Amino acid sequence: MVRGRISRLSVHDLRFPTSLEGHGSDAMHTDPDYSAAYVVLETDAEDGLKGCGLTFTLGKGTEVVVCAVNALAPHLLNKDLGDIVGDFRGFYRQLTSDGQLRWIGPEKGAVHLATAAVLNAVWDLWAKQEGKPLWKLLVDMDPRMLLSCIDFRYITDVLTEEEAYEILQKGQVGKKEREEQMQTQGYPAYTTSCAWLGYTDTRLTQLCSEALKDGWTRFKVKVGADLQDDIRRCRLIRNVIGPEKTLWLEPEFLWWLLSGSLCHDCMLGLCSRWPLCPGDLRPAARPVLGRPLRKGLSSQMMDANQRWDVPEAVEWMAKLAEFKPLWIEEPTCPDDILGHAAISKALAPLGIGVATGEQCHNRVIFKQLLQAKALQFLQIDSCRLGSVNENLSVLLMAKKFGVPVCPHAGGVGLCELVQHLIIFDFISVSASLKDRMCEYVDHLHEHFKYPVVIRKACYMPPKDAGYSTEMKEESVRQHQYPDGEVWKELLAAQGN
Amino acid sequence: MVRGRISRLSVHDLRFPTSLEGHGSDAMHTDPDYSAAYVVLETDAEDGLKGCGLTFTLGKGTEVVVCAVNALAPHLLNKDLGDIVGDFRGFYRQLTSDGQLRWIGPEKGAVHLATAAVLNAVWDLWAKQEGKPLWKLLVDMDPRMLLSCIDFRYITDVLTEEEAYEILQKGQVGKKEREEQMQTQGYPAYTTSCAWLGYTDTRLTQLCSEALKDGWTRFKVKVGADLQDDIRRCRLIRNVIGPEKTLWLEPEFLWWLLSGSLCHDCMLGLCSRWPLCPGDLRPAARPVLGRPLRKGLSSQMMDANQRWDVPEAVEWMAKLAEFKPLWIEEPTCPDDILGHAAISKALAPLGIGVATGEQCHNRVIFKQLLQAKALQFLQIDSCRLGSVNENLSVLLMAKKFGVPVCPHAGGVGLCELVQHLIIFDFISVSASLKDRMCEYVDHLHEHFKYPVVIRKACYMPPKDAGYSTEMKEESVRQHQYPDGEVWKELLAAQGN
Repeated sequence: MVRGRISRLSVHDLRFPTSLEGHGSDAMHTDPDYSAAYVVLETDAEDGLKGCGLTFTLGKGTEVVVCAVNALAPHLLNKDLGDIVGDFRGFYRQLTSDGQLRWIGPEKGAVHLATAAVLNAVWDLWAKQEGKPLWKLLVDMDPRMLLSCIDFRYITDVLTEEEAYEILQKGQVGKKEREEQMQTQGYPAYTTSCAWLGYTDTRLTQLCSEALKDGWTRFKVKVGADLQDDIRRCRLIRNVIGPEKTLWLEPEFLWWLLSGSLCHDCMLGLCSRWPLCPGDLRPAARPVLGRPLRKGLSSQMMDANQRWDVPEAVEWMAKLAEFKPLWIEEPTCPDDILGHAAISKALAPLGIGVATGEQCHNRVIFKQLLQAKALQFLQIDSCRLGSVNENLSVLLMAKKFGVPVCPHAGGVGLCELVQHLIIFDFISVSASLKDRMCEYVDHLHEHFKYPVVIRKACYMPPKDAGYSTEMKEESVRQHQYPDGEVWKELLAAQGN
Repeated sequence: MVRGRISRLSVHDLRFPTSLEGHGSDAMHTDPDYSAAYVVLETDAEDGLKGCGLTFTLGKGTEVVVCAVNALAPHLLNKDLGDIVGDFRGFYRQLTSDGQLRWIGPEKGAVHLATAAVLNAVWDLWAKQEGKPLWKLLVDMDPRMLLSCIDFRYITDVLTEEEAYEILQKGQVGKKEREEQMQTQGYPAYTTSCAWLGYTDTRLTQLCSEALKDGWTRFKVKVGADLQDDIRRCRLIRNVIGPEKTLWLEPEFLWWLLSGSLCHDCMLGLCSRWPLCPGDLRPAARPVLGRPLRKGLSSQMMDANQRWDVPEAVEWMAKLAEFKPLWIEEPTCPDDILGHAAISKALAPLGIGVATGEQCHNRVIFKQLLQAKALQFLQIDSCRLGSVNENLSVLLMAKKFGVPVCPHAGGVGLCELVQHLIIFDFISVSASLKDRMCEYVDHLHEHFKYPVVIRKACYMPPKDAGYSTEMKEESVRQHQYPDGEVWKELLAAQGN
C-alpha cells in the first residue's frame, strides 16, 4: 500500500510563549515556552499526502534539535517509503547508529529527539497512506510485521523477539471487544492542567473545581520547590477533590460488590465510571489480601520533576504522605535507576508508588527500571523515545514485567500523539485498564488539524488517518521562531 | 588572581579526515573523522589570555554541538571570570539546569558535550591566568575550593561533600613525593594506535612491533565485528607482544621478590619499569591469596565499542579468553548499568575485567556503575562529562569505591586534556598506580600548541600554563568545516 520516494524534508522551530502565564512550570522548568521541532516529509507520490512529525521541547534548544534533524535528513531523502517501512528495524538502526552521528548520543539527547521527530513523520505518512489512524494501523498490523519495526538490540536479555511475539499473540484474544470498548468509552485520563507550580492558590482551587465538574477525578500537582508550599497546595487540592475514600466504606461499593458487577478498576478505585460502572470490563475480583484498596474516587499524583537527591526524595515524600498520593513522579535524576529503586522500596510501606519516564531517553533505561523494580507506573513519551518503534519495545517490556503504562503527555502535541500508543497498548498488548491512565493537559490543542477529543475525562480514539501530528498551517507560520508574527511582536516588545 | 569579563565566545567546527586511512575505526564507528567543537573565550583583561576548550566528536554532528555551544553562550557572555570560578558549582548548575535547555539533555547528548567544551575553555583560562598547568592548579588548590567546583546533586547518596573532603585531606599525605614521582617518571600509558579495526593484519603486526621497541607493553585491540577476525587479530598481537606471563615463573620476579624490593605494580604485572623496577613506589607486597598475579609483561585489552547484547558479550568473550585480556571495554550499551554488572559477574571467573566510561554521559551513570559493581576499570572522558567539574566528582567516587581510573583518550585533544586529570588523580586522590594506566593514541597531536609528551610509554606532566587545549591557529583555519582548505579540497575531490 505504501508508495512514493521522500522528495523533501523540512523542519521548523516552533515556539509558543507559554511562560508568560506560568503554564507548564515546575520545580526544574520554571519558565517553559512549549515548543517543537516540527518535521514535514513530502513524497513524489501523486496522493499529495505529507508526513508530519514533531518532538517536544521547552523553547531554547529547539534550534539544536532542528540542526540535528537536518543532520539526519540525508538518511531519508530519496528513500522509498516502502523500503523504509519494509525494513523499519534496519532503517531505525541506520538512524540511531550512524557511525559518526551516534557519538553525540548515542540514542539520547538532541539527536534522539530529532530521530523521534523524523520517525513520527514517517509513521504519520504511513498511516495516512493506509487511510487509518495510527492506533488502528498498529492494531491491524500482523504481529511479525509489527515486531520488524523494533530494534531489539540491547534488550534481548529481558525480551527476545519470540517472547514479544507470544505477547502479541496472546493480545489477539478479546481484541475486537477491547477496540469496541475504546470506541464507546475511550481511554481514561488524568489532568495536570490545574496545578502548575507557577499558578496561584486561587487559580489552582478554581481550576480543580471546574475540572471536577467536568468529570475529572485524578489530579496531578507539581511539588519539590518548597515543602511548606507543597503541603499547602496539596491540602488545597484535597479539600477541593475530597479526601481519599476507602472504597469498602462506601454504601454504593458494598451494593455493587454484593451484586457481583464491579469491574476490576472499581475495586482499585481507578474506574472513571464509578459509581455507575456497568461492570462490563471483567467480573468483579475479590479484594486481594495484603493489597489495600487504597484509592478513593479522587486520586492525587505528585510530580517533583527531578528536583531531589535520593535521601531527600524519601524524606520529602514522607511529609506529603498524609495527602495519599498515588505516585511520586520523577523524584530524582531520570538516569538514576538504582536511585529510583531505592525510593520505590522506601515509599512502598507508605502506599506511594514511583512513576517516571518522560525524560528516560531510551529503551535501555526502561529495561533497567523494570529489572530493578524501580517504578510502579511507567510513563512513555511519544517524542523522547525513538518514535513508535522504540515505544513498542517499551510497551512490550512493561507487559512482560506487569507494570502499568501511564503515558506522559501535555506540552505541545504530546497528547495528540501518545493517545494512539496507549489505545494500541490496551487493545493489543496490556488488555487491561487496571492502574492505568493517560496524562492530559489542556493547552495548545487548537493548533492541530486533528486535536484530541476528551469525553468524560477519557481520550476518545482518533478517527482521522495519520498520527494526529499535523499542525494548522497558520499556526506553523505564526509560531516560527524567531520570524513568525507571534515572536516578532513579543521580541519587539521585549526590546522596548 | 583571576580577572576579566568574558567579552567574546567563538566556536569552530573542526574536522580531520581520519576516515581516509581507517584511523579510529571500530565495530560501531567504521568511518570516524576525528572532530571537535572548539571554543575560544576572550576577556576584557589586559593580559590578552584566551581560554580554549573543546569537545571531541566524530565528524557529522559537530555542527549540532556547535549550535548547542551557541545556545549556552548567553550564560557566559559579560560574566566576570572571578564570579564564575568563585561560585563554580552554581555556574555549573546554571549551565546544566537552564530551565528550557535542559529538556534536550538533561546532562547528556549534544548539550552536555557543549557544556564540556565551554567549561574546558573556562578551566584553560583560569589555569593560564594562574600561570599553572591545569593539573598543578588542581593539586595546589585548597580542598574546600576544589569541592566548591563540584555539583553534588544526585550523588549525595554515595558521596557527600564531607566524605569528599576527607578523601582530599587524606590525599595530602605524600602528595609532594607523588608530584616528584610524576615529574621524573610520568603517568603510565597504554596504546590503542596499533589495532584499529580498519587496519590490515600486516599493518597491525608492524605497528605492534614498533610500539614494543618504543617501550609499550600494553596494547588495546578493537573487537566485536566478526569473531573469527577477532581471534586471528588477537593471536597476531599476542604473537608479537608475547604470551601472558605469570610472574612467579619468571626468575627475575623470584629474585626481586626475595630481595623485597618489588613495587606493588610489579606484583600485578602492571609496572612499566619491570624487570628493572627500582621498587621505589612502595615496599613489595606479598601476593594476596585468591588474587592471582595474572598479568605478565605485556597486557592486551579488548574493546567492543558497544557492539553486543548482554548474553552475546559473555559468549563472545569466553571465546577470546584464551588471549588473556585484562579487560573488555564497552561490551554493550553505555547506558546499561545492570547489563555491565551481569557481564562483570560472568567474566570474573575468566579473569577478565569490564571497563567502560567514554560514552557514560554523566556522574549519575558512573555512580550507578560503581554501586552495581559493574566495572573493574573506570574510564573517565575529559570531553563527555561536564568538564573538570564533573570529572572531579567521578574521581572522588571511584576512590571511595576503590575502583581504578584508566581514562579514555585519543581522538583529537583527549590525550592533551585527560593527562591533567589523571596526574591530579594520582597526586591528590588515588595515590596509587595499581591497575592504573591512561590510554594513548598517536594521532593529531601536531595541531596543538602544547602537545602531550610521552616518555617510555608514560605521560610526562605538562609544564605550560593552561589545560593544553589550545590549537595552532593554522590548524584551526585549515580544518574548519566545510570552509577550511583541507575540506574545500576534499569536498571538491569528492564532487569530481
